[in-house]
Amino acid sequence: MPSYQAPIDHVRFLLNDVFHIERHANLAGFADATPDLVDAVLSEAGKLCEGVLQPLNQSGDREGCVRHADGSVTTPKGFKAAMKTYAEGGWLGLSVDPEFGGQGLPYVISAAVGEFANSANLAFAMYPGLTQGALAALLTHGSPEQKATYAAKMTAGEWLGTMNLTEPHCGTDLGLLKTKAVPNADGTYAITGQKIFISAGEHDLGENIIHLVLARIEGAPAGVKGISLFIVPKFMVDAAGKLGARNGVSCGSIEHKMGIHANSTCVMNYDGATGFLIGEANRGLNAMFVMMNEARLGVTTQGLAVSEVAYQNAANYARDRLQGRALTGAKQPDKAADPIIVHPDVRRTLLTIRAFNEAARAFVLWSALNSDIAHRSADADMRRTADDLLGLMTPILKGVLTDLGFENTVRAQQMLGGHGYIEEWGMEQFVRDARIAMIYEGANGIQALDLVGRKLPRDGGRAVQAFFGEVSGFVSQTESDPAMAPFSGLLRLALGDLQKATLWLMQNGLANPDNAAAGSYDYMHLFGLVALGYMWGLMAQATLKLKADGDTSDAIATRLIVGQFFMERILPETRLRLARLSTGATTVMALPAEAF
Amino acid sequence: MPSYQAPIDHVRFLLNDVFHIERHANLAGFADATPDLVDAVLSEAGKLCEGVLQPLNQSGDREGCVRHADGSVTTPKGFKAAMKTYAEGGWLGLSVDPEFGGQGLPYVISAAVGEFANSANLAFAMYPGLTQGALAALLTHGSPEQKATYAAKMTAGEWLGTMNLTEPHCGTDLGLLKTKAVPNADGTYAITGQKIFISAGEHDLGENIIHLVLARIEGAPAGVKGISLFIVPKFMVDAAGKLGARNGVSCGSIEHKMGIHANSTCVMNYDGATGFLIGEANRGLNAMFVMMNEARLGVTTQGLAVSEVAYQNAANYARDRLQGRALTGAKQPDKAADPIIVHPDVRRTLLTIRAFNEAARAFVLWSALNSDIAHRSADADMRRTADDLLGLMTPILKGVLTDLGFENTVRAQQMLGGHGYIEEWGMEQFVRDARIAMIYEGANGIQALDLVGRKLPRDGGRAVQAFFGEVSGFVSQTESDPAMAPFSGLLRLALGDLQKATLWLMQNGLANPDNAAAGSYDYMHLFGLVALGYMWGLMAQATLKLKADGDTSDAIATRLIVGQFFMERILPETRLRLARLSTGATTVMALPAEAF
Repeated sequence: MPSYQAPIDHVRFLLNDVFHIERHANLAGFADATPDLVDAVLSEAGKLCEGVLQPLNQSGDREGCVRHADGSVTTPKGFKAAMKTYAEGGWLGLSVDPEFGGQGLPYVISAAVGEFANSANLAFAMYPGLTQGALAALLTHGSPEQKATYAAKMTAGEWLGTMNLTEPHCGTDLGLLKTKAVPNADGTYAITGQKIFISAGEHDLGENIIHLVLARIEGAPAGVKGISLFIVPKFMVDAAGKLGARNGVSCGSIEHKMGIHANSTCVMNYDGATGFLIGEANRGLNAMFVMMNEARLGVTTQGLAVSEVAYQNAANYARDRLQGRALTGAKQPDKAADPIIVHPDVRRTLLTIRAFNEAARAFVLWSALNSDIAHRSADADMRRTADDLLGLMTPILKGVLTDLGFENTVRAQQMLGGHGYIEEWGMEQFVRDARIAMIYEGANGIQALDLVGRKLPRDGGRAVQAFFGEVSGFVSQTESDPAMAPFSGLLRLALGDLQKATLWLMQNGLANPDNAAAGSYDYMHLFGLVALGYMWGLMAQATLKLKADGDTSDAIATRLIVGQFFMERILPETRLRLARLSTGATTVMALPAEAF
Repeated sequence: MPSYQAPIDHVRFLLNDVFHIERHANLAGFADATPDLVDAVLSEAGKLCEGVLQPLNQSGDREGCVRHADGSVTTPKGFKAAMKTYAEGGWLGLSVDPEFGGQGLPYVISAAVGEFANSANLAFAMYPGLTQGALAALLTHGSPEQKATYAAKMTAGEWLGTMNLTEPHCGTDLGLLKTKAVPNADGTYAITGQKIFISAGEHDLGENIIHLVLARIEGAPAGVKGISLFIVPKFMVDAAGKLGARNGVSCGSIEHKMGIHANSTCVMNYDGATGFLIGEANRGLNAMFVMMNEARLGVTTQGLAVSEVAYQNAANYARDRLQGRALTGAKQPDKAADPIIVHPDVRRTLLTIRAFNEAARAFVLWSALNSDIAHRSADADMRRTADDLLGLMTPILKGVLTDLGFENTVRAQQMLGGHGYIEEWGMEQFVRDARIAMIYEGANGIQALDLVGRKLPRDGGRAVQAFFGEVSGFVSQTESDPAMAPFSGLLRLALGDLQKATLWLMQNGLANPDNAAAGSYDYMHLFGLVALGYMWGLMAQATLKLKADGDTSDAIATRLIVGQFFMERILPETRLRLARLSTGATTVMALPAEAF
């Protein structure tokens, strides 16, 4: 059975030594986040994830969710108790405004905890994760009454949330959606239609389920400009906050999936269910985007999280498994064989995963900190820049970290040879679970299109220019330091590739949008590589500072080697990505559809 | 439910127009392989695979194999009848010597049919596939009596075969194996020990199962030089060929795996089972290698095969699924949306898979033809060159085609969005099934080590020099033709990268074998890219010849575009692989084991 240990030390290093969260003490909630408190939070979260959630991961996968004839759904053994523990610990509300029962801590802390939970048990973590996404949309766009009715219960994890977008004929293209909302006399709406792929759509983990549902009000314009967002509670809630009658929404079936078996993926049938409009009519997509962006960061974290736990188990195996001898002579001649970690190709594989994990964690926390700044800073310029960067990076985070996270689970599985393919060892579950993150919340090809088609040109390229400026400033500032040269020098080359690619896209995408789209996936990955390389630059700088300050721990030397591996072996892929996208759309678009 | 159509036209093009099998009419069996006969064989094989095997693929995955309390194993519904049909059609013996009941056709035909079977139902195809591997070892190393006893029954598919290598503590490192063989007075041996991960170890598909088992004769030298190979039939066979008593071998349990559920992966217990030495004592590894090389080509084909069927289903979906609009304006304005195949990134994905599939198929058949020449040519020089190339290419075929084949199943799954993750659609099964091919018959990291450590330096690099000579001769001969320039020019660059990498490995691997091992995986993929690029060169040349001869079919234009995509977008990865491996072992080996 696989094991898991939360990477608390690395998070602490990132928060304190790399991102210096103490410098943001002027932001709401940050002053409370003293190093001691953060340590306590991380340590408690680690214990919970290691001790409560992780032991249910494999059994949850085997058991799966069961839908009964009455439409109710039972989650695997232990999930109900785990959810109670998780909710009562206040983990859903870690960064929620105290007005609604939260602890008001920085979102960056909540993001770190989210990684632990997803490493320990991805299928479980989706239940609170989706609730947090729904809550974010409610707090941003809901009326005071709606917040008063739902927010505290959701923060407390007593009521859970979902997001209902997809319909059988409409996934990416929400403009096609048909679910209809007919106004009732009392100002509510009767919602009718079918939604599919609804994660956590029905289950037994909370007293109520608050569905946020996209639907089209009768007579609304066609396309995405006629979509509104509704709150549809499973049980109606009266003025006193007591649960009332069952609403007209039910789970028609659950899907049999490749992975995340312990999360119920439901077909949801709305039969004149009572819905409450949230935000403005026909502006539902706008409200939904708050939730979707939150959810995309959550899914990003899943890519990292499964890569981390897969790494830990692959490394443990590689240290233990005796097989063959080192090429340079026996390392443990007293034993029948050497552990396979003596082999360069095993180390190459492990370092590939680890170099990603550490940079990806930095990238997630850097982005979460930007989210904090964007939401909490008093300085409009800072808010704007942070929001620009977060908007730009969201598709890159989601697309790149889930792609690479999945690939890493495959690499980690490979380290166990035949055992990696056997359910008992748990590695193949990581592969199956990680796979969904590339698909949901906008398939990664859609993220690439969002990046190239929307995020890049937005505001005349202001966000991308800000990022280029930040990275090139960092390079200029550090490359004269010989200890930093291996990082800064290669980062400069990679940034150059990204700048060339950006220029190419701007010039050729204008002439023909297919040029930009044909290169979008390579561009997204090229951008991701530079962002991860920049994170390694920041981490190397902070590590060298600690070293200069007298830190002689093994972690210092290890981190610099892992970083160097990233710069030497992984970052140079930027050149290939640039070469590919520069070939344009001619060949890609040359064939008629029937030739495929 | 997914569908499958055997790519008969492409195989025909490869055999006739690219590899000109008619030029080898002097080889045994080739004269019989007239275009008409080959067409008939391929067409019958296609029908069988499409009509009988493929419909059992998804149900076989769901049902899996069941082991009963008495140790017997039941395969999924329909498998028994399908095996009977497959066996009675003579498909196991397609290229087996008529002396043992085979049809004696070229192995290259059998390899093409093997792809169809693996596309249709990989878990099923393993049963006859392993039998063919065991049979090859028997025919090469068995005594006349052993051949007389077993070969015809195995050729007929009445008795099936297995290979028993792995033990709990010993996978890659066979020197550690403990299963023991104690000589009996009658010249047989009593075999005792436990084998794990034995594919098709027990089932209900044949009257008998002929296990080929590696064991150590009492008193034999330690390590790989003390291993012998034994025939251990499930049921003893008397002099008249009749089945007798049950032998002392049984299935202790079956594994629960990520995929290939319909193939029984068994723990096999040998309790003093009667075994018959095959070949010389203590030379078992040598005999096993015949089987292993055959099996590696089989596994190679699996990588291609699943990639092909996954492609077909992804392309069908992309043509059918209406969602969103083309960036350059609606293509089907009368419908609610355009099919997603209008999108450049969808096409990029499909072309990535297809450009691999066509080149991989060529590479497999090119290698199978080399196997025919190596085994059947009267010319010693031709035999030697063919054998050199086959030996060199075996790890590349296995490592690269199964890696890329798996990646392609993931890409194809992605094309279906959320549906790709749902069991019902069948795409996720392709991913789970294809995954095993990277692991068994020598995990791909081992293939890379075999390439760099053994195949490359063998005979002073004779094989690799022969390949470089062949490719550079092709480039020189074709690059002056303007129509070939896009192929030859890029192939020359890629070959240059491979030659530089080879030189780097020779120079730096001598100084420190860790340098070679740290770059082995990148080298294997670099080599594979050049081989696939060379196949595209050959296919482009043959296509242009057909065009010049007046062929105006759509297939001509399509093939040239698909090939151009490969050269532009995929082949340039050689440069990255070269850059990576040239970084050597220093960083990779810098950390102590406990730092991981």
